[in-house]
Amino acid sequence: MSSDGREKLSSGAHCPIPISEYPTVTLAHGGGGRMTQMLIERFFLRSFDNPQLELLHDGAIVDVETLRLAFSTDSFVISPLFFPGGDIGSLAIHGTINDLARCGAKPLALSAGFILEEGFEMAKLWRITQSMRAAAQQVGVPVITGDTKVVDRGKGDGVFINTTGIGLVAEGVSISPRAARPGDVVLVNGSIGEHGIAVMSVREGLEFETALESDSAPLHDLVSEVIRAVGGELRVLRDPTRGGLASALNEIAAQAGVGIRLDETSIPVKDEVRGACEILGLDPLYVANEGKCLLIVARSAAERALETMRAHPHGREAAVIGQIVDEHPGKVFLRSRIGGTRVVDMLSGEQLPRIC
Amino acid sequence: MSSDGREKLSSGAHCPIPISEYPTVTLAHGGGGRMTQMLIERFFLRSFDNPQLELLHDGAIVDVETLRLAFSTDSFVISPLFFPGGDIGSLAIHGTINDLARCGAKPLALSAGFILEEGFEMAKLWRITQSMRAAAQQVGVPVITGDTKVVDRGKGDGVFINTTGIGLVAEGVSISPRAARPGDVVLVNGSIGEHGIAVMSVREGLEFETALESDSAPLHDLVSEVIRAVGGELRVLRDPTRGGLASALNEIAAQAGVGIRLDETSIPVKDEVRGACEILGLDPLYVANEGKCLLIVARSAAERALETMRAHPHGREAAVIGQIVDEHPGKVFLRSRIGGTRVVDMLSGEQLPRIC
Repeated sequence: MSSDGREKLSSGAHCPIPISEYPTVTLAHGGGGRMTQMLIERFFLRSFDNPQLELLHDGAIVDVETLRLAFSTDSFVISPLFFPGGDIGSLAIHGTINDLARCGAKPLALSAGFILEEGFEMAKLWRITQSMRAAAQQVGVPVITGDTKVVDRGKGDGVFINTTGIGLVAEGVSISPRAARPGDVVLVNGSIGEHGIAVMSVREGLEFETALESDSAPLHDLVSEVIRAVGGELRVLRDPTRGGLASALNEIAAQAGVGIRLDETSIPVKDEVRGACEILGLDPLYVANEGKCLLIVARSAAERALETMRAHPHGREAAVIGQIVDEHPGKVFLRSRIGGTRVVDMLSGEQLPRIC
Repeated sequence: MSSDGREKLSSGAHCPIPISEYPTVTLAHGGGGRMTQMLIERFFLRSFDNPQLELLHDGAIVDVETLRLAFSTDSFVISPLFFPGGDIGSLAIHGTINDLARCGAKPLALSAGFILEEGFEMAKLWRITQSMRAAAQQVGVPVITGDTKVVDRGKGDGVFINTTGIGLVAEGVSISPRAARPGDVVLVNGSIGEHGIAVMSVREGLEFETALESDSAPLHDLVSEVIRAVGGELRVLRDPTRGGLASALNEIAAQAGVGIRLDETSIPVKDEVRGACEILGLDPLYVANEGKCLLIVARSAAERALETMRAHPHGREAAVIGQIVDEHPGKVFLRSRIGGTRVVDMLSGEQLPRIC
């Protein structure tokens, strides 16, 4: 152990996370908040140093001769495998389609990698496979290559699925988390927190008066409509998945070096979600979504973006929820229902493990 | 349960594997042999029905406007994580680079998806990340996008890594497992079985007089040299990974509808591998490789392919090991050291679980 608490390892390079402080991986490292960010920045960005990865876009753009391709990967470890409104199979298709969409790309093809646990029921695997099939058919994007591994009983958890996708970025589109500018407007395509609460309701055995389902949905079509409507005035796209709206906006604020001011009353949250959050001690701003997209657009394009979304089945409840400001660069703050203002920090620790 | 033993599931489609016979996933479903093939054919090919996937190439070709892209995915679940000659990190880079190479593609970019188990040592994760970094730098292919998930203790096994790659297929190249024709020649770039035996030696605590290391290596450069030397006379490329040489050649024989005759004395096997196989009760033909490539080329190009490989660091011990024949279509058979002939079947059951 060296004097600064960072261990010198046999590979010759210093481990950039102080091992005495963080000796092992914790669930919070996968929660989408501050700990996840630390792991990504200190381990992965340093190791695989390249400009695409640094954009932290949950998807990268690669130029191949004359084409601009988007490339994105996601592993799904959700528990339980089946939940109201979907299952790990449909989620694995929607998740990667949405990652490509937020690169401004038309999805072209997907891969699927399965890690199965010995003893997993074949009937469940078939149900999941059929659900992936249906989701892939619905979005019209084929799964063209795959891989299957099996681990011994007790070394996995039924099934984990990785999907990776490639897409074609339309000409003239340049969406980047760094593009947000003061004066821009923040929109979301509908009410937040449904995926996380639907999954938690199964885990915790909660029942609602009306059925609450995950919002899991493919958003590539909605995004392409918005791009058609506002073109280069669309600055940033981000899916508020793990870590919720708060974490996604904190990442953008940090990357673009701007402040983001939210208006609590304008953020759509269903009553069931609000109620469940109260019972579970959660804040809807931090709860995962799987069919929601945050958009940052130039003020001049806000009305067009809103109308376009509201005309789309996945955007009927779209809303303007805030704006980009000069003050408090790197911070997100919220004007609350009762008129006060508070800082909305990035998720620290884990709130909802294995939510996707 | 319906009369043919296939369960009708809530999704409405019949499960194509008789559930009364195979109620759960077994390790053999991941072994690379007959059971893996059954799972892939009955579940995945049926569900994601499309021409690219049907080629079963462990990689697919997708046309994007004027370009031909190769796309391949692989999840790595090897145990132990560190073994003589490599670790899960270097293996994850080499494996997907090799999958792209055997599509006849120049690798362009990789994604990396980590599934970490709560409690996994941070120092080990750093070592693995550094090993991936070194391997990616060596092949000159960047990891441009990634994902990190954490599962609770006891629901994973340290770390699983998915890598997915995209590559550019050179013009005029058309490599397909179905292209093998009677008269063609089968070559391998060196001695077989080292990866599997190196990993098993750690698991079983075997010691060898001389160090036996995994052959894990990136073969894209070797393959591109061979393509340059023999062009369209290169018919088939295949990596004999899980299930070994025997399973890979059986797949080709079945897909091309040809017989494959091997000559046992010409198949390079190191003495340490042969000895360990005797102790462990294994057949080197079924042991996994991670730096070997099977090539099927037109007879007229065999000499050129052999010379090209022998001039390359990863092909010094390349050899002609057999030929494609008319008789016994779909079968692989071996003229043994003592002069007899036997059928070399596809691996049935699991031989070496979690070897990659």
